[in-house]
Amino acid sequence: MAETSVDFGILAGAGAPVREFKAGEVIFKLGDAASEFFVIQSGKVDIRLGNRSLGILSDHDIFGEMALIDAAPRSATAIAATDVKLVPVSEKQFLFLVSQTPHFALNIMRVLARRLRAQNSVM
Amino acid sequence: MAETSVDFGILAGAGAPVREFKAGEVIFKLGDAASEFFVIQSGKVDIRLGNRSLGILSDHDIFGEMALIDAAPRSATAIAATDVKLVPVSEKQFLFLVSQTPHFALNIMRVLARRLRAQNSVM
Repeated sequence: MAETSVDFGILAGAGAPVREFKAGEVIFKLGDAASEFFVIQSGKVDIRLGNRSLGILSDHDIFGEMALIDAAPRSATAIAATDVKLVPVSEKQFLFLVSQTPHFALNIMRVLARRLRAQNSVM
Repeated sequence: MAETSVDFGILAGAGAPVREFKAGEVIFKLGDAASEFFVIQSGKVDIRLGNRSLGILSDHDIFGEMALIDAAPRSATAIAATDVKLVPVSEKQFLFLVSQTPHFALNIMRVLARRLRAQNSVM
């Protein structure tokens, strides 16, 4: 993801409370109710659907935004691939960011568009 | 797409210049340069990648937004599945809508999120 990722590093700083997971721990599961997305402060996260990895994400990538966008349960399972530190961003913060910072909205769209392109290319 | 589509009908009214295609005509091809997206005013559009249909879109659905979001060539081919009337929306209008109307930005995100969920479900 390095060259194609959008840098959400700005959200990973600023003293927000950090949530830590050990390598192998489940961060959320397919079908879970969702109220936040995550910015990776450090470490790697594997996004999985059954036995298939949809991608490994790393520093300053985001994940879990899908469920906030369409108010549906988690669409995949997220597992800590290494020890990770995550900054959670609530649904309220997410909607605030979208409404106040068009740049943030465009960056989220870019993340989604790249994932769609990546999935099309392997289908 | 009927039940899950986001209604962009408001963009399809308002006397914007309409572009018409006959059933079977190519609207754009994979790899084409892109400077606009489309709102379907009437008719059906088939989004294709090689021999595979990624989905049939209909009235008030949008397509072609991916290339505007990440400034890349068209990621798929769009073919008129019936006679169609389309309202083109320029990149400049797109960026204006994203910056001025958070609801529009969220709707675009919803479209992308639903496409990702749909693709994951068939992989």
